[in-house]
Amino acid sequence: MADDLHAGYAALTPDTLRARIAAVPALAGRLGGDPAGWRAAEVGDGNLNLVFIVEGPAGALVVKQALPWLRLVGEAWPLPLRRTFFEWSALTRHGARDPGRVPEVFHFDEGQALLAMRYLTPHRIFRKAVIDGVIHPRMPGDIGRFMARTLFRGSALSLDGTALRREMALFAGNTVLSDITERLVFTDPYFAADGNRHTPGLAPFIGPLRADRALRVAAQEMKHAFVSRSETLVHGDLHSGSIMVTADDTRVIDPEFAIYGPIGFDVGMFMANLLLAYHAQSGHEERPGARDGYRAWLLEAVTGVWAAFADEFARLWRTERTGILYAPALFEAAGDPAGAEAALARVLRGILVDAMGFCGVEMHRRILGLAHVEDLEAIADPARRASCEARALETGRLLACGRADIGPGDVPGLAATIEREIAR
Amino acid sequence: MADDLHAGYAALTPDTLRARIAAVPALAGRLGGDPAGWRAAEVGDGNLNLVFIVEGPAGALVVKQALPWLRLVGEAWPLPLRRTFFEWSALTRHGARDPGRVPEVFHFDEGQALLAMRYLTPHRIFRKAVIDGVIHPRMPGDIGRFMARTLFRGSALSLDGTALRREMALFAGNTVLSDITERLVFTDPYFAADGNRHTPGLAPFIGPLRADRALRVAAQEMKHAFVSRSETLVHGDLHSGSIMVTADDTRVIDPEFAIYGPIGFDVGMFMANLLLAYHAQSGHEERPGARDGYRAWLLEAVTGVWAAFADEFARLWRTERTGILYAPALFEAAGDPAGAEAALARVLRGILVDAMGFCGVEMHRRILGLAHVEDLEAIADPARRASCEARALETGRLLACGRADIGPGDVPGLAATIEREIAR
Repeated sequence: MADDLHAGYAALTPDTLRARIAAVPALAGRLGGDPAGWRAAEVGDGNLNLVFIVEGPAGALVVKQALPWLRLVGEAWPLPLRRTFFEWSALTRHGARDPGRVPEVFHFDEGQALLAMRYLTPHRIFRKAVIDGVIHPRMPGDIGRFMARTLFRGSALSLDGTALRREMALFAGNTVLSDITERLVFTDPYFAADGNRHTPGLAPFIGPLRADRALRVAAQEMKHAFVSRSETLVHGDLHSGSIMVTADDTRVIDPEFAIYGPIGFDVGMFMANLLLAYHAQSGHEERPGARDGYRAWLLEAVTGVWAAFADEFARLWRTERTGILYAPALFEAAGDPAGAEAALARVLRGILVDAMGFCGVEMHRRILGLAHVEDLEAIADPARRASCEARALETGRLLACGRADIGPGDVPGLAATIEREIAR
Repeated sequence: MADDLHAGYAALTPDTLRARIAAVPALAGRLGGDPAGWRAAEVGDGNLNLVFIVEGPAGALVVKQALPWLRLVGEAWPLPLRRTFFEWSALTRHGARDPGRVPEVFHFDEGQALLAMRYLTPHRIFRKAVIDGVIHPRMPGDIGRFMARTLFRGSALSLDGTALRREMALFAGNTVLSDITERLVFTDPYFAADGNRHTPGLAPFIGPLRADRALRVAAQEMKHAFVSRSETLVHGDLHSGSIMVTADDTRVIDPEFAIYGPIGFDVGMFMANLLLAYHAQSGHEERPGARDGYRAWLLEAVTGVWAAFADEFARLWRTERTGILYAPALFEAAGDPAGAEAALARVLRGILVDAMGFCGVEMHRRILGLAHVEDLEAIADPARRASCEARALETGRLLACGRADIGPGDVPGLAATIEREIAR
């Protein structure tokens, strides 16, 4: 059990949920009619929480409630309910910094660790779309701009020092979830830690990977950056399962891992999920090559996400640099706009190096660690899955170790070459 | 006035101080005898606080009390009294992490913003010794080890994630003093900001310095690092006036600017003060060359401080790496001690690059900004002072811009060459 368990906290069921909602007029009004007639179903498929969809005659809601333990593991792994406070804190900031890109929050009950939000429909989880091979052309631009806006506007490029340190201190309280990231992403995958698991046929690839000294140093350098670089409010868990899509819309959900961290963190984590999907394609296609078009789109999405991020970040740099860093008084206002551009280029370059490093380690932990991705898990044949995973491990290794030299423009050629070289 | 002014707060005078101490038995007992007979004198010569030495028949104390404004400027610049809480918090941590290197704290009164500490005698402020040309051979080793121990043991190399974030959040409250550092060190010196002042004859050197685009970018990159890199508890104001020395002892005082920042910050700031002193020597010598021996010692002190820091940091890395970064489970315990050494080399290299950058900007702000150093201010002849300052500005510029390529071993040759090239 979490040690911040509120006396009145009770994990909801579809039945008790109706009474809980009926007691909040603002929520009951959105559903309409008699609470006894509301349909409620638990649909959570993540690792942490209960998620309900509740429907009434006037509308529908999503209700998310934290459990006092890690759902993926059970009561043996307690988790603080206060993570819902951090999720709410991040959602409201994301909503203000990139309006329309996160679900609207209607109600937050701290004691019950409960958030009631707009039911997004006909949205589906982006990861499911990827497994089905469905192209979402809006996604790279929407996510690239979301990252640029939330990451720029949460940083000292936008905020003054007092606001920055107040925000940093607030999210520093989200320590249990940060501990999970620090352990599961950066350390456990690189040795035989408790809780790790992997596809049996992958063993011949794991020994050499864990023996790679430069890779272990690189992974710890990325951990050092994650732990110590409090640049901005990162989503903290921006993978394909934290994004919901339609043909016309893209939404970002589930920021309960939010903390102050490096700008490149979300960028790299998300790119990793696109590359994991890329290397998983051969496990999902009916015949070799059947998904070549989708493969190509996934690689275009990697470069597209970065391009949208970099363009929007540059726009904000030029028009909204109101924080304490790179003050316009020293550049534009001193007759030196080129100095500001030179500094921007160096800042973007630093973000990119970080992103490539985070991308590499995320690819490893989703194959060697505790929490895997459905893109690969859904491949039933272990031999086929292992060969997909072996390719993803190698791409991740080259990105983590080569992060100072490899950019998004190199990624398609790199990933495609590895896809050919390591036998299917 | 500071907005955290406590209702009962009263700035002390030597007279009211006696009554205040008499009311605290632990302090009164250290002085002994009748309070009416205690001798008390205000001796503060810093920029921020009142400092009293109180002597009785049984012993003496130092009492430091914060004023609700910046002493250097006056009531127009309010400062929070809570800085004394941060000073006390840092002093106790420094005392635990490098025992014997800070003065013992006997009493902390938060409402009065008052700290009573051991009276260090026959210690004097290191900066005064430097102006007089007195060599203190123990200083480089003592300060190098102090920095290694406090900076290593306050970081995630020593602490777990929960402790690190708790500490970071605590010191993030020291925001007003961090704002001062951010503005006065990294930004104001590089344009015509309010509060700046400089020696009149220096003007021909200032225009080109402020026009140097690469330097302004470098200064902002160092600010970015200071603001965003929450690696460890830095002293935050480790200059020659924050160190007290005897022939046998070295003590570090006045950590009220303490905050989580980059490991290289204290290292670079302190080196800058040695180099400012170096370039000030020609303003203090009776005849040209009279202080050549002392000049040589100051440059040896720069390399000596770094060597002592790096040696002790490496020792702690090998013997005390109990935190969440570079876990021994991935290196020594996995049969790869060389991997840990490779990572150490990269970490030290990163600290050094930062230190050189911070060193450069500190040299500039002590000449162009609000708060100057007595090493230079004590040179009565403005023309002589300006030529010392011009040399220091150029050394600072080369260090800030060349920080990726220039190490402590290069500094003596660099500074000595500039000393010759720019006419006295």
